Amino acid sequence: MKIVRMQTPEGIRYGAVEPEGIRIHDGTPFVAWQPTEVVVDFREARLLSPVFPTKVIGVTANYASGPDDAGSLPERPSLFMKPSTSVIGPGQAIVLPALSGQVHHGAAVAVVIGKVARKVAVEDASSVVLGYTAGNDITALDLLREEGQPARAKSFDSFCPLGPAIETEYDPLEDFSLECHVNGVLRQGTSINDMIFGVAELISFVTYVMTLLPGDVILTGTPPGAGPVKNGDVVEVSLEGVGALTNPVVSE
Amino acid sequence: MKIVRMQTPEGIRYGAVEPEGIRIHDGTPFVAWQPTEVVVDFREARLLSPVFPTKVIGVTANYASGPDDAGSLPERPSLFMKPSTSVIGPGQAIVLPALSGQVHHGAAVAVVIGKVARKVAVEDASSVVLGYTAGNDITALDLLREEGQPARAKSFDSFCPLGPAIETEYDPLEDFSLECHVNGVLRQGTSINDMIFGVAELISFVTYVMTLLPGDVILTGTPPGAGPVKNGDVVEVSLEGVGALTNPVVSE
Repeated sequence: MKIVRMQTPEGIRYGAVEPEGIRIHDGTPFVAWQPTEVVVDFREARLLSPVFPTKVIGVTANYASGPDDAGSLPERPSLFMKPSTSVIGPGQAIVLPALSGQVHHGAAVAVVIGKVARKVAVEDASSVVLGYTAGNDITALDLLREEGQPARAKSFDSFCPLGPAIETEYDPLEDFSLECHVNGVLRQGTSINDMIFGVAELISFVTYVMTLLPGDVILTGTPPGAGPVKNGDVVEVSLEGVGALTNPVVSE
Repeated sequence: MKIVRMQTPEGIRYGAVEPEGIRIHDGTPFVAWQPTEVVVDFREARLLSPVFPTKVIGVTANYASGPDDAGSLPERPSLFMKPSTSVIGPGQAIVLPALSGQVHHGAAVAVVIGKVARKVAVEDASSVVLGYTAGNDITALDLLREEGQPARAKSFDSFCPLGPAIETEYDPLEDFSLECHVNGVLRQGTSINDMIFGVAELISFVTYVMTLLPGDVILTGTPPGAGPVKNGDVVEVSLEGVGALTNPVVSE
């Protein structure tokens, strides 16, 4: 099933993608999830990020030869956080802050957590996953390098595009591709199997630190090729089996 | 006014401290705030953290000679984030994770944001503040040093005690004292005027990066004297004019 979240005249609703359109559901994918009789045409749907997380946990250097490759394989994942206020949905603009002169895209597989998850063993990790969507870990690279800390460089409003849909049948052990195109030109392309720490290991690692709540997101790292974006660009992150997340880039 | 949040038989409610007890209010301090006729005796009130933030933004090295003093005055604040799942209230236990052998307390003035705040000028900063409470920035110092990044070291569940009440009449330019006692022994004590970046500057700095939402919290840094806590300790952060936040420490 592909789950989306959308703005409707009756407020924000979740839906499931069907051949003829998006079937609105009552409740959320986490509780009281029930199909209604209402199906919205694809062309009329105003999609939002498919989930609004309480927190987004990111992992750096999780692909060999990635942009922040340390030269040797890391012993453990290195985490960062992005605030909920950085999340945007498909079609919404990535806004380049005046404070940075060097903003980079970063395609990522985004894991959407489905239930309260605390100290989850690697072998149980799949049981706390709702599904997968495409993510874009936008970073003000100049600020990251100056400050040595990602808390400002990765936290600007609009710096975490997610979407378009959560695929609940996705298998992170498949040889799916993750790509990023800027203005149609391939910038990043890899198999998700090239991750150093797999999804199950990341979920276990994170939940031994902090409780994850339904809708929380783990960005599992960005592959080689992350590069700058500028005003007027269009960035597309494609996650095979899930779909394409497209966002325009605008100056502040 | 002193605002508290508490568990009642009817669910979580906010209240205001009055001489005879805590007057329950409808709504929240942010919207539809209305006194009711119900006053709860202090001894019966089960206080929670006075607010449940969507995010907690912290500032390191904001007191000269603080634990992470860089030797010279920083050009700008250095930020970190703690997830909402790290927040606990007065009396709740700080849980020492098995993953760390060196957990430190860190008394801090906590600013509670009262309205949606984006790109707030320094001179307008006080208009977005609901009030102030005491905070404790708990850190797994060994993990922080090993990893060079605070995203794991400061994010464990229970690593952000806040409370007991939000004082809305507090003036951060007064010469108020901030103290931390462990088992009754003074560990940290300073005037909040010793901050390098003041509250208004911090609010402006943060809101030029990310939108702050009602209830979000800024921890304004910890003064010299932050040190280790162990199983069985009792940590008390006292913010003059606000009150004392007391938490026991337990092993996982």
